Amino acid sequence: MVFDFETPIDRRGTGSSKWDKMEALFGVSAEDGLAMWTADSDYATAPCVIEKLRAAAEHGVFGYMPEYDGYLNSVAWWMTNRHGWQVEPDWVLTTQGLGNAVALCIDVWSAPNEGVVTFNPVYHEFANKIRKTGRRVVECPLARDGDTYVLDLEDAQERLSGDERVLLWCSPQNPSGRVWSAEELRAVAEFAERNDLILVSDEIHHDLVFPGAAFVPMHVAAPEAEHRMVILTAASKTFNIAGLRTGNMIIPDATLRAAMRARLKTLDYQPGTLGMMMIEAAYSPEGAAWVDAQIAHLARNRDAFDAAVNAIPGVRSMPLQGTYLAWVDFSGTGMSQEEITRRVHEDARIAPSPGPGFGTGGEGFLRFNLATTHARVVEAGRRLHKAFSDLQ
Amino acid sequence: MVFDFETPIDRRGTGSSKWDKMEALFGVSAEDGLAMWTADSDYATAPCVIEKLRAAAEHGVFGYMPEYDGYLNSVAWWMTNRHGWQVEPDWVLTTQGLGNAVALCIDVWSAPNEGVVTFNPVYHEFANKIRKTGRRVVECPLARDGDTYVLDLEDAQERLSGDERVLLWCSPQNPSGRVWSAEELRAVAEFAERNDLILVSDEIHHDLVFPGAAFVPMHVAAPEAEHRMVILTAASKTFNIAGLRTGNMIIPDATLRAAMRARLKTLDYQPGTLGMMMIEAAYSPEGAAWVDAQIAHLARNRDAFDAAVNAIPGVRSMPLQGTYLAWVDFSGTGMSQEEITRRVHEDARIAPSPGPGFGTGGEGFLRFNLATTHARVVEAGRRLHKAFSDLQ
Ligand SMILES: Cc1ncc(COP(=O)(O)O)c(C=O)c1O
Ligand SMILES: Cc1ncc(COP(=O)(O)O)c(C=O)c1O
Repeated sequence: MVFDFETPIDRRGTGSSKWDKMEALFGVSAEDGLAMWTADSDYATAPCVIEKLRAAAEHGVFGYMPEYDGYLNSVAWWMTNRHGWQVEPDWVLTTQGLGNAVALCIDVWSAPNEGVVTFNPVYHEFANKIRKTGRRVVECPLARDGDTYVLDLEDAQERLSGDERVLLWCSPQNPSGRVWSAEELRAVAEFAERNDLILVSDEIHHDLVFPGAAFVPMHVAAPEAEHRMVILTAASKTFNIAGLRTGNMIIPDATLRAAMRARLKTLDYQPGTLGMMMIEAAYSPEGAAWVDAQIAHLARNRDAFDAAVNAIPGVRSMPLQGTYLAWVDFSGTGMSQEEITRRVHEDARIAPSPGPGFGTGGEGFLRFNLATTHARVVEAGRRLHKAFSDLQ
Repeated sequence: MVFDFETPIDRRGTGSSKWDKMEALFGVSAEDGLAMWTADSDYATAPCVIEKLRAAAEHGVFGYMPEYDGYLNSVAWWMTNRHGWQVEPDWVLTTQGLGNAVALCIDVWSAPNEGVVTFNPVYHEFANKIRKTGRRVVECPLARDGDTYVLDLEDAQERLSGDERVLLWCSPQNPSGRVWSAEELRAVAEFAERNDLILVSDEIHHDLVFPGAAFVPMHVAAPEAEHRMVILTAASKTFNIAGLRTGNMIIPDATLRAAMRARLKTLDYQPGTLGMMMIEAAYSPEGAAWVDAQIAHLARNRDAFDAAVNAIPGVRSMPLQGTYLAWVDFSGTGMSQEEITRRVHEDARIAPSPGPGFGTGGEGFLRFNLATTHARVVEAGRRLHKAFSDLQ
């Protein structure tokens, strides 16, 4: 089966954050601007998911439906078949997306004013959630090893003051696209053990990993740490259904799971039927074939984008092992963040995510979302090249 | 346009709570049993809502989408046009359904061990939510005036101990179908004022009101109490989309609204795109025409059901002014709740909601959901008649 990632879909005026809020937030007009910030895709989800939605429309009844076996089994099936990770269906709790899941983890496993640890630069919402819940952000900078990020756990250890309760870990990593090795993951789990931290492993980008890299689930790398482990997964990035607001917490440990389940019950959280049905349809052999095709499409996009931006002197795109988010270092241009941003917004008419939002280490960077048509990625590369033509 | 409420839709095996959990919970086999408990409908939603879902499937992209103007405006439009209630779009907060909204109100406006007031019998989840959040249920019994419930606020006043913070009010009333007068609503608002209670008015059933009764929104009846008022509304009962888990809190007061908005942001609650889109489609002239037709259908169901059960000596269905939930008093039979339930489950093979779950005043009652085909309601009446034939 041939899947289509290339026919442009006009998302302007559809309520899309990425397209319809671009002008207000970044001053980049949607008329000929390229929205490359928010992490969703511009192409349609898998045909099997759309088919399921059509069938639901045909049925026409949208009454009460609990987390049903077929849905929970499909989550377990996907983890086993795509990630070699044996998940029991009853380990799976459904949340209102992973932003919500992160907020709930902080809420359940720490108290106001206590510390929550992050390795930066990292997904900007980690710090937002920590602050909004009145906890302290404890930033541990990732170290640079040439073109890639590596852990510096000795440095991290020194930054802890002893009141930290939770570690928010991101794997594969947003914004850098790093896919961590089993050895690195075990080191992180030991760090959590040594400091008595609940280890929240946000693995939302786990499906979108490029040939040559191998994603290892935290629970596979460090099963001995499962008594402190909460794994966050979702079909939302993989299948472009973030709008459905449905994510999963996978909690192998019964005590941790009971604590979170109680919190979800207290808030009366119940997952939406269409989210569950679409995930069940996605987590299938048909869905897997579509994901394989998407990865090939994204690899082509990455290669074209990197070739274009790496040709600009002083600009360097981190080699992407996973995710569709290109993390581009403009610091070698010697320009200020302000000037880089001005050129990208005004001259190139592109709206990426600003690097400093990702915390320490994000200065001089911009993050570009490549989950769009190949033609648009090529056009973005061309525009960036032109906006910095004086350097060439 | 002619709308179809009569073609039977088989919901068995679709994941529906009402049908697929009936046997496990009540021992009534889905094979020939009638599910009349959970408050959702057995017929399809309005054609305009289904059309919108089909169009969303066609678009195929389900990325991030905030609460958008078209959606918020449609909520305001509906309140103005169907209920004569002027609502500003920015008063509207979206929740994960009204069970979630009730839990959040308790959480935001009271502390553990404080009291939350209910007028019973009432929607069983009020007490569940109060208990799960560690607050005290302060039950105030409704009084009987012949065939209907009335307020006894003097009695209620005596039951308060002074640490009550929130009043959970239900209008139209579940389970009795009472539609309260403006005068009664003003008395409730004064009671809240006198006792310094946040007045949470759960108006989820507001659209399904029968000819002869007139629903008055709390905010229309008692605008002077808006500084303590939170109104809960949803399209979920009206349009049979409870599975979408999307409800609204309408909070006219800026201070109360800011407190709730902060809580939603802390939890990173964001409404699902399909829920918003379906509500926008529902809250339209086409949706209104469908609701009018549904009310006519439900009135016919009510009349047939009441005629059948009221013909059983000692059994009396409360005259339903609104909602599709028939509240039937079996106490005149002199039988125990156990015997009544046994006959209904085993002999009539019907699963209604047990009366005692609704708190004080629910003993001797069962609640029957009439939101199904007319043929099924007639069949239910026939079966009940037969199960109690020894009384006739
Ligand atoms: C690492 C990570 N976690 C969580 C999220 C957000 O997930 P959700 O949309 O389910 O709230 C994102 C979105 O970009 C992400 O990159
Ligand atoms: C009065 C009342 N409030 C709230 C609810 C539940 O609403 P939701 O499904 O949005 O949680 C119901 C459902 O029966 C109800 O009758």
